[in-house]
Amino acid sequence: MRKLEKGLKVKVLKSEYLVKRPWLTAKKESLELPDGRNVPEYWVLEYPDWVNTIAVTKDGLFIFVYQYRHALQVSEYELCSGVCEKEDTDALASAKRELLEETGYGNGQWRKLMTISANPSTQTNMVHCFLATDVEKISTQHLDETENLTVETLTLEQVKELLKTDQIKQATHIAPLWRYMAENKLF
Amino acid sequence: MRKLEKGLKVKVLKSEYLVKRPWLTAKKESLELPDGRNVPEYWVLEYPDWVNTIAVTKDGLFIFVYQYRHALQVSEYELCSGVCEKEDTDALASAKRELLEETGYGNGQWRKLMTISANPSTQTNMVHCFLATDVEKISTQHLDETENLTVETLTLEQVKELLKTDQIKQATHIAPLWRYMAENKLF
Repeated sequence: MRKLEKGLKVKVLKSEYLVKRPWLTAKKESLELPDGRNVPEYWVLEYPDWVNTIAVTKDGLFIFVYQYRHALQVSEYELCSGVCEKEDTDALASAKRELLEETGYGNGQWRKLMTISANPSTQTNMVHCFLATDVEKISTQHLDETENLTVETLTLEQVKELLKTDQIKQATHIAPLWRYMAENKLF
Repeated sequence: MRKLEKGLKVKVLKSEYLVKRPWLTAKKESLELPDGRNVPEYWVLEYPDWVNTIAVTKDGLFIFVYQYRHALQVSEYELCSGVCEKEDTDALASAKRELLEETGYGNGQWRKLMTISANPSTQTNMVHCFLATDVEKISTQHLDETENLTVETLTLEQVKELLKTDQIKQATHIAPLWRYMAENKLF
């Protein structure tokens, strides 16, 4: 069995940014494969790293946000999530800041659950997934200007129901949730 | 607890395609939120639907592909996956075609495991995840021109090791794999 290998495996012949906006950075690359063949147009999307958190209260309730997601035109439950800002010292700090801002919950014990990618073939960024247990309500919500979401606490049975019936669509949230269920033998 | 709700929840004031290429279609939209506030620049990425398959042989071996993923610059194991083509009658047909083309495996019993999204806020497409059991090698690989991947069969223990040690990065593949592990009580 092979290992995950990091490092460039193609020759980048040309790379140019065609979109460079706050919410979309897209560059077009021309690649030479190891066997000499060319891929004349390969699109790479650059994003900052993202974070999300499975946050559980002392009473065993799971903190979820319910919000509208425009590209897919669905309103769904998701984990609290966000973007790693330059001011954050690391991904854990980003996750704690996002949980506090979006939901008002904090404290508790935190650990990294996994680090994944929304799409390794097109996106440059990683998604850092955390588990926070024994979190408490310590503040009020402080949402960004155009954020519009509702915070809800769900029981384990409700979270399992959402997962079983495919009501959470965001793959980068479903992956850590199913991992949490599998490793804690909750199914 | 709320349900997943489908439907537009904002007013699209303006929508224009800024990139329309075979591998990237990006449109810039101007949105009006329900409370009247404006989001002047919201990027939506349009893709065709995708498929992936957890394929298991009669001997209980899992069919994986090992390949280089350029945006993240990693070489990793992934499920067999691909794009829904216009010629395919449905997502199941796409998944069967991709498994046969990429790996030479076919037949077996197929069922839909889940339907998810790589990113509901930015991408319009769905990812249809299938489980195929008792698949058999019935053909040779027929790869697309610039595809470069190796097919390997892994044991359950090897797949669990890859998952536990975070060696698969693709969230849309990790989600169905952990679901499979949780529902079959394999952890």
